[in-house]
Amino acid sequence: MRGVVLHAPGDVRVEEIDDPKITAPTDAIIRLSASCVCGSDLWPFRGVEHVDRPMPMGHEYVGIVEEVGSEVKNVKPGQFVVGSFVASDGTCEICRAGYPSSCVDRVFMSQVGTQSGRALIPHADGTLVATPAMPDAELIPSLLAASDVLGTGWFGAVAAEAGPGKTVAVVGDGAVGLMAVLAAKQLGAERIIAISRHETRQKLAREFGGTDIVTERGDDGVAKVKELTAGMGAHSVVEAVGTQESMQQAIRSTRPGGHVGFVGVNHDVALSGEELFFAQVHLLGGPAPVRRFLPELIDLIWERKIDPGKVFDLTLPLEQAAEGYRAMDERRAIKALLTL
Amino acid sequence: MRGVVLHAPGDVRVEEIDDPKITAPTDAIIRLSASCVCGSDLWPFRGVEHVDRPMPMGHEYVGIVEEVGSEVKNVKPGQFVVGSFVASDGTCEICRAGYPSSCVDRVFMSQVGTQSGRALIPHADGTLVATPAMPDAELIPSLLAASDVLGTGWFGAVAAEAGPGKTVAVVGDGAVGLMAVLAAKQLGAERIIAISRHETRQKLAREFGGTDIVTERGDDGVAKVKELTAGMGAHSVVEAVGTQESMQQAIRSTRPGGHVGFVGVNHDVALSGEELFFAQVHLLGGPAPVRRFLPELIDLIWERKIDPGKVFDLTLPLEQAAEGYRAMDERRAIKALLTL
Repeated sequence: MRGVVLHAPGDVRVEEIDDPKITAPTDAIIRLSASCVCGSDLWPFRGVEHVDRPMPMGHEYVGIVEEVGSEVKNVKPGQFVVGSFVASDGTCEICRAGYPSSCVDRVFMSQVGTQSGRALIPHADGTLVATPAMPDAELIPSLLAASDVLGTGWFGAVAAEAGPGKTVAVVGDGAVGLMAVLAAKQLGAERIIAISRHETRQKLAREFGGTDIVTERGDDGVAKVKELTAGMGAHSVVEAVGTQESMQQAIRSTRPGGHVGFVGVNHDVALSGEELFFAQVHLLGGPAPVRRFLPELIDLIWERKIDPGKVFDLTLPLEQAAEGYRAMDERRAIKALLTL
Repeated sequence: MRGVVLHAPGDVRVEEIDDPKITAPTDAIIRLSASCVCGSDLWPFRGVEHVDRPMPMGHEYVGIVEEVGSEVKNVKPGQFVVGSFVASDGTCEICRAGYPSSCVDRVFMSQVGTQSGRALIPHADGTLVATPAMPDAELIPSLLAASDVLGTGWFGAVAAEAGPGKTVAVVGDGAVGLMAVLAAKQLGAERIIAISRHETRQKLAREFGGTDIVTERGDDGVAKVKELTAGMGAHSVVEAVGTQESMQQAIRSTRPGGHVGFVGVNHDVALSGEELFFAQVHLLGGPAPVRRFLPELIDLIWERKIDPGKVFDLTLPLEQAAEGYRAMDERRAIKALLTL
C-alpha cells in the first residue's frame, strides 16, 4: 500500500510500505476514509524531534473496519469507526479513571502511522468507536477531527474547566487552539478570548464561538487578557502551542485559583517552580484522553451541532502529502486533509 | 514590646520593637497568646532568601483582640481569634472563589511579623476567625497550628484531592508534611504513605494516620511508592518541601490523572514542561488559602477531633526564639512554640 514516510527533516515521501497484519487477538485493521497532517507531525518535519530512521507518519484516522482479531468484540468488519491517536486497552485503572492516553498498555499511533491506505489499530475494543451508521461524506472531515485535533482542544478546555460564567482564553491559533475555542463554546463559557494575529484564523475563531481577539503575544498578550478581566486574568486558559513563551503566557494569563489546560506538546520548556507556586493556578496537560470524549463528540457531529471539519482548509490526495506538510509548516494552511 | 528580628543569616535577636498602631479602619491589634517558628522562617535564616535589612519575623498567631478599626465588624475586643498567615479582604472575586491567600489586597503577615507581644492584623474582617469562647490552654497549640502549618498541610491534601478510596503519599516530614498526613486521614484517604527517614517523625506520622512509611528519597522513593501502588503511583501526592528533588519526587510518584498538591515554598525549582506533559498529573500549589479552611479546622480542634498541636515538640519563651530557630534548622525539633 501507499504511505507517508519521513526520511529526514523536510524530506516527506509517499511510497510503497508493507500492508498491516493482525498479530495480536485484540488488533483490528481499518481501511482509511481520510487521514490528515497534525501540528505535532511538524516537530520531526522541522527537525525539532530527532529522526534516526525512516518514520511512517500520521496518527489521526477514520475508516472502515476490514478485519478484527479473535478477541475483538466492540467493533466488526464493515463498521465505520473513529479512534484516538493513542490506542488504549480501556480496562486498566488509568483508563477507567478517564485517562486512556496514559493507559498502562498504550500505543501511540504515531509509532504505527496512519497516513496510508490501511492501518493497524492495537487494542481495538478500547480504542475505536463505531458511528451509528455509514456517515455522509460531508461528515468525514469532522469525524476525522475528533480523532485528535478536536479531542485535544476539547481536553484543553475541560482541563481548563471552561464552563458557564467563565472567561476562557486560548493561547495558540493552530487547529487545536481553534478547536479549544469551539469546545469552550460548547461547554458554555461566557466569554472566549482567542489569541491570534492571523486574520483567517481570527475569523474561524469567531465562527467557532470566540468573543474577543487578542493579537499580542508573550507578556503583552498577558496584559491584554488582564485588561479584559478586571486585572485578574481569565478563569480558564488553554495552551495549544507548547513553547516556553506560550506556556508562560498561559500561566500568567490565568487568575489565582484558575485553571490552565495545556495541550501543546512541550518542547524545551522549563517552568519556574517559584512562579507556579505564587501563580496558584491549577495545571493539567498531556496527550489528550480523546477516547473519553469520543462518544460525546461523535454524537455532536452526527447531530450536526458542531462542524469542526471547517478546520481543514486544504485538501490534497495522499500522494501530495509533502505539500500538506509544507503548507502547514509555512502557515499557509491551518490543517491539511489527505484523501484516499 | 519585645519581638524577634532577623539581622542577617543565622543572626536572630529578640529586642525592643515599636508597638503596633491602627492606621486603617479595617485593622485590628491582637495580643498574642502564643507564636511559633515556621519552616519557611528558615529560608531567610539560612540565607537562601536574601535579608537586606533587619526583618521582624513570624507570621503565625493566635491571640486576643485588643483594638479594632472603625470598620471592623466581625471581631471585637476581648475575643480569642485565629487568623491566616496571609491577611485578605474576604470580599474580592479571588477571595470569594476560595483563594484568599491570593486576594487582590493580600498582605503577607511575614511582612508584619508576629513573633512579638502584639501584632497588627490588616483586613481583620476577612482574616480573623473568633473561637466560640476562650479556649482552654491545652487547645492553644492546636489553634496556633491552624494559622499556617495545619491549614497549609490541609490545603496540600485538598489540592491533591485526598479522599475516600485514594492512596495519598506525602513528600516531606516537616510539620507541614505531618499535618498533610493528618488532613489526608480526616478527608477519608484509604492509605497514607509518609516519606520520612526520621524515627520520631515516622512515629508522629503514624499517630496522625499514616499507614505506610517510605524512607527512600528521590527516584528511589518514587520506585517504592510505585511498588506500593501496583506500579501506577499514588492518586494524590502532597509536596511539602519545595526543592527540585522533592517536586520531582512528588510529580513522579503520582499516577497519570492523579493530583499533586505542592505547598513547600519553591526555591530554585525548574520543572520540565515535557515531563509534566507526559506525566499528565494535576498540579496545584501556592500559599495555602488557610482562611477558607479556618472555620472547619477550628471546629475540629474545638471538638477535640484532631490534635495538630502535637507537632510542637519544643516550647520556649519568646526571649529564647533564637534557640527555636537553631533547633529547627538542625532538625532537633519539628516545630518550636514560643510562649508570651
